[in-house]
Amino acid sequence: MRVDGREQAQLREIHIEKNYIKHAEGSVLISVGDTKVICTASIEDKVPPFMRGGGKGWITAEYSMLPRATEQRNIRESSKGKVTGRTMEIQRLIGRALRSVVQLEKLGERTVWIDCDVIQADGGTRTASITGAYVAMVLAFSKLIERRAISAYPVKDFLAATSVGVDPERGPILDLNYIEDSSANVDMNVVMTGKGEFVELQGTGEEATFSRTQLNELLELAEKGIQDLIHHQMEALGEDISNAILK
Amino acid sequence: MRVDGREQAQLREIHIEKNYIKHAEGSVLISVGDTKVICTASIEDKVPPFMRGGGKGWITAEYSMLPRATEQRNIRESSKGKVTGRTMEIQRLIGRALRSVVQLEKLGERTVWIDCDVIQADGGTRTASITGAYVAMVLAFSKLIERRAISAYPVKDFLAATSVGVDPERGPILDLNYIEDSSANVDMNVVMTGKGEFVELQGTGEEATFSRTQLNELLELAEKGIQDLIHHQMEALGEDISNAILK
Amino acid sequence: MRVDGREQAQLREIHIEKNYIKHAEGSVLISVGDTKVICTASIEDKVPPFMRGGGKGWITAEYSMLPRATEQRNIRESSKGKVTGRTMEIQRLIGRALRSVVQLEKLGERTVWIDCDVIQADGGTRTASITGAYVAMVLAFSKLIERRAISAYPVKDFLAATSVGVDPERGPILDLNYIEDSSANVDMNVVMTGKGEFVELQGTGEEATFSRTQLNELLELAEKGIQDLIHHQMEALGEDISNAILK
Amino acid sequence: MRVDGREQAQLREIHIEKNYIKHAEGSVLISVGDTKVICTASIEDKVPPFMRGGGKGWITAEYSMLPRATEQRNIRESSKGKVTGRTMEIQRLIGRALRSVVQLEKLGERTVWIDCDVIQADGGTRTASITGAYVAMVLAFSKLIERRAISAYPVKDFLAATSVGVDPERGPILDLNYIEDSSANVDMNVVMTGKGEFVELQGTGEEATFSRTQLNELLELAEKGIQDLIHHQMEALGEDISNAILK
Amino acid sequence: MRVDGREQAQLREIHIEKNYIKHAEGSVLISVGDTKVICTASIEDKVPPFMRGGGKGWITAEYSMLPRATEQRNIRESSKGKVTGRTMEIQRLIGRALRSVVQLEKLGERTVWIDCDVIQADGGTRTASITGAYVAMVLAFSKLIERRAISAYPVKDFLAATSVGVDPERGPILDLNYIEDSSANVDMNVVMTGKGEFVELQGTGEEATFSRTQLNELLELAEKGIQDLIHHQMEALGEDISNAILK
Amino acid sequence: MRVDGREQAQLREIHIEKNYIKHAEGSVLISVGDTKVICTASIEDKVPPFMRGGGKGWITAEYSMLPRATEQRNIRESSKGKVTGRTMEIQRLIGRALRSVVQLEKLGERTVWIDCDVIQADGGTRTASITGAYVAMVLAFSKLIERRAISAYPVKDFLAATSVGVDPERGPILDLNYIEDSSANVDMNVVMTGKGEFVELQGTGEEATFSRTQLNELLELAEKGIQDLIHHQMEALGEDISNAILK
Repeated sequence: MRVDGREQAQLREIHIEKNYIKHAEGSVLISVGDTKVICTASIEDKVPPFMRGGGKGWITAEYSMLPRATEQRNIRESSKGKVTGRTMEIQRLIGRALRSVVQLEKLGERTVWIDCDVIQADGGTRTASITGAYVAMVLAFSKLIERRAISAYPVKDFLAATSVGVDPERGPILDLNYIEDSSANVDMNVVMTGKGEFVELQGTGEEATFSRTQLNELLELAEKGIQDLIHHQMEALGEDISNAILK
Repeated sequence: MRVDGREQAQLREIHIEKNYIKHAEGSVLISVGDTKVICTASIEDKVPPFMRGGGKGWITAEYSMLPRATEQRNIRESSKGKVTGRTMEIQRLIGRALRSVVQLEKLGERTVWIDCDVIQADGGTRTASITGAYVAMVLAFSKLIERRAISAYPVKDFLAATSVGVDPERGPILDLNYIEDSSANVDMNVVMTGKGEFVELQGTGEEATFSRTQLNELLELAEKGIQDLIHHQMEALGEDISNAILK
Repeated sequence: MRVDGREQAQLREIHIEKNYIKHAEGSVLISVGDTKVICTASIEDKVPPFMRGGGKGWITAEYSMLPRATEQRNIRESSKGKVTGRTMEIQRLIGRALRSVVQLEKLGERTVWIDCDVIQADGGTRTASITGAYVAMVLAFSKLIERRAISAYPVKDFLAATSVGVDPERGPILDLNYIEDSSANVDMNVVMTGKGEFVELQGTGEEATFSRTQLNELLELAEKGIQDLIHHQMEALGEDISNAILK
Repeated sequence: MRVDGREQAQLREIHIEKNYIKHAEGSVLISVGDTKVICTASIEDKVPPFMRGGGKGWITAEYSMLPRATEQRNIRESSKGKVTGRTMEIQRLIGRALRSVVQLEKLGERTVWIDCDVIQADGGTRTASITGAYVAMVLAFSKLIERRAISAYPVKDFLAATSVGVDPERGPILDLNYIEDSSANVDMNVVMTGKGEFVELQGTGEEATFSRTQLNELLELAEKGIQDLIHHQMEALGEDISNAILK
Repeated sequence: MRVDGREQAQLREIHIEKNYIKHAEGSVLISVGDTKVICTASIEDKVPPFMRGGGKGWITAEYSMLPRATEQRNIRESSKGKVTGRTMEIQRLIGRALRSVVQLEKLGERTVWIDCDVIQADGGTRTASITGAYVAMVLAFSKLIERRAISAYPVKDFLAATSVGVDPERGPILDLNYIEDSSANVDMNVVMTGKGEFVELQGTGEEATFSRTQLNELLELAEKGIQDLIHHQMEALGEDISNAILK
Repeated sequence: MRVDGREQAQLREIHIEKNYIKHAEGSVLISVGDTKVICTASIEDKVPPFMRGGGKGWITAEYSMLPRATEQRNIRESSKGKVTGRTMEIQRLIGRALRSVVQLEKLGERTVWIDCDVIQADGGTRTASITGAYVAMVLAFSKLIERRAISAYPVKDFLAATSVGVDPERGPILDLNYIEDSSANVDMNVVMTGKGEFVELQGTGEEATFSRTQLNELLELAEKGIQDLIHHQMEALGEDISNAILK
């Protein structure tokens, strides 16, 4: 049994609270166990200079943690005067992942700004951010449809993310919390679509290595977890929007 | 009647949710109408270099807004690479205000880091931050008492803050929301103790001026509002802690 | 008697030397006791982007201290690579104060850049900056009138600033020098117009508080001091300009 | 046939020139086709503060491109005043990869600074950097052995990296040059040890997705390519050092 | 005749006002025509880390211009967040020049911080800064002698600086003002000692070149000008200090 | 005899390898003894904003060192977040020197970006940069002529640079390596044209001074060295290009 009593292939408890921030076009508070992230999607009616005139939209993401989201208070990046490498990696990942399921030409020359702000962290903040940001983004698209700016959801599929890893004692496990993440030999983040295609695969064996067999076991777990997460997304979005996406 | 139906001397609805963030020694989510701020208090067992060896504690504050706390998305200060003048003014104000009611020599050589993160903004974010931060700080002191690091609450009094202003049509009003704040001729932030003493008074007539008479009317409103806010603080902290502070 | 022999309601010696810097449209060297500030006003024939096309002018201020203006040499902000919170607070205050007495629509789409550079500091540098900057600004307006860019002084009234505070032994005092400022319980900066209306009121009880009665005593002193300062401004500007402003 | 006449599973021409920079403890100029990287390894006889007293060593990497390494001149990061997200990702990857095959406790409290400077770029600069940096690091370890600071190579295995991708017309290909990289649907960087274990796996389908089957084909190619690269490393290091590592 | 009526080998009017800033150990306001610079010398009783324990002192300089020292207002370097290349060149030059005539081992482990702040600029600000800074530094040494920290002036000689250049119409000229500097073909800054030895020689022919003959003519002018400047320094310092230096 | 066996007026071994970087319009790897610099010239078909519409071209230079170009690894300027004063001085010098021999009006509204990246340093990196950059720039001009953008080399003359100095034991010496540079009393960089005219002269006696006689001896050495360097440039460029420049 895992440190919090879960089985190897079991996600933590998932909650997705819609429309959490009143000003944003789309927003959720997503909880994956004790990891809590506010995800907002803001629509801007123009694209960055390098894309102007191309008729396509753009999606970009920013990620941050409140200083006391973690066990030890961490220094604000605004005080340091720069964004850390870890933050940059994560926000590039979130943006890239979302763009892979959006039909940018159907979005039109608009930018979706995704903001993922971790208010409480217990492992898996980047994957929770992707899973939550997808829902916030779809809600923002609903606003665009309501005001007849676009006629249909410009998304090809659902999209969610989770982490898997190799626990030195229990072997492959799904959805690592902070304690598990700290002791895992291998750490892998997987982003997948509703149809089970890979969007991103990032496996790291910090001061360790992993075999092809272990890779395959981890991918099985990830696939199962992502299917569960997509059910939670569907529930949060409701039947109408979910059907519109799947159609 | 005001834009949201309130009377001139009426606060917006106040909620203070205790222990909102599990990692912090003290934390609250304070709502003043639609303004929502996460306030955490973190204890560090040392003081800044310039205070070492003096036997006294220190309190410092940081303030930030999530990008989509506002009607228009604002750029993160970490992306800009620097903290704006407005943010600096506010965090200096919060720290100074809290220090005025803390017995720093009874705190011992410890730093209290206050973090006020506005997740939704509708006017009065700096005063809501002070009112919430006071509660978070006292909760952190409870932790220090529990682990017998200190024997009593090192605070002299309660402390809360509100804004008052002169509406061009309705005259002096209490606790301005964003719309009222935008059209007010005079804007004043008042920080007061439970005994009704001033800690900070910041009155500004941007492109306008105000008379001694108006000043007096504004101070009456502020005093009334701050008494109400302190009742909410007492309720959140509970009778035992409140009595310990008042003793 | 105070540390430098003054009475409680007595200003330090005031000198205002006009046209101190040959390149600037308006400039003064103001001395308030040993506090000396070079104030220049520069006219630029355009306004910031957010104001373009509105037909109104803008006034913005910058403030700095030479490294050895103070007893201990302080590090240049250009070496630190950023402006401190204190500097930002002061320059925002100076700009806001001046804008309150200027008819921006009569100025036309022009920006007045105010620069206040403290060459020697002995307390009250921000209030001396405001008092001096007002004169420099009016002198720059004279240049605009001379070259027929505007037809009258676009100012509603005189404007000056001073500090008041509560000395632990002598009670309320006017125009604190550095030693007095360091030991005062309460520190208040007041900006007022010639008609005696408030423009800014910033009272702080760092690690202390103050009562409504003390507030009233401090405001009396400030009002008296500001009237004296405005007489010095009139003398510096001369009868013709002063009458043109008062008309 | 590929754009440069190679077969799908064929690497570009590889050259590893040892001791390219006289001051560095270890250095190579690695060429992978037209991609050329100077890799140096510098030994510092201390570790970062967070590791002091632990008896273990540390390896950290920095990566940069000369402005005209690319078809279009790119702006120096020193002129921009900050390191881009892409650079941070790459240097974190290089450091993590090398640490996975080094016995940090046998290295002792020393830091190896790896610098990878791309002087000419034609795709695959991060994987060429890892492959070259491994050799430079081993050469620096030779210096430590020569001066009897350590008694054996503190490495567990060889380590090399390459990229694989899915060409829209030719399917899976090995070691993409810049033109191939620009048009590939899927882009994957693989870091592996001499024994064929994974160290890092980073697969991305920017605006595309990939299946489990495609993943398996790509991994076959990568494994083959990395075995070839390790032969080039062995040749560059010579038989004695290679045997000492494999023992 | 030159633009301001001077002869080719004639300096502008020179004034050196001693003890201009009360807090500094040494200070002057130097005027060279309309160029005015406040130079202060501050003594710190320690040296930078790289010099500790060596028994020698250090001299370092900073240089800045007030925003409106020039015809067009220039942006503060603190606002830009960085010091320009021009400023860096000048402050490195001032420090290097002063160190060449100071016996750092007789100064003891102290740092002299030189600050040159140009309050009004009309060409030749860097050479005026050196000439003024020398006097401020000697005055600071007087303070060290007064408080018996050192027993004699730790200087080997006087030191002053001027500019020379080639006017397209008038040929070689001494001490260029801003208008002359803008149109000169060759611009040369010369720093010399009282004995006529060179300390620095910086000649530049921006978009032009100069011959050995022209160089010799310029050096004659510079030598003459520097002798005049040193007389002004002696006058400012008085006979006693001057003799103590020359002894 | 000098530390490396050279005579006083002898340059180190010079190599200029043309077209070292395939992407750049012009490039060389220049070696002056163990000092090695990659110089590239990139053509951009526009000029900076302040020059637009004037019909003239512009030349600007950047300079950097790889971290391990030196005996001790130095920190990257991109990591520091700013360019040092030394780097700024050098890049300003390189740009100014090249502009002095280029007919900017014949270049047309184009910018030449010069990048000098020192890959191995042993003294004289700035003068090697100028000598190498001149050749890279001429090669870039050849590209412009080939594609008929200009009809002739827009250069007035050859240009090269070297250093001279006063060795405390051997007296004046030419082309100092790092060891000689560290112990020299006087250090002078000289930039000259093929016709023997000065372009830049920067002589410094850090903590020392030098006489007119010494200056003359140093200039003789520099002139001789620069003639030798220009022969190497001619050889690298070939007879046709050299004649076209000299015509």
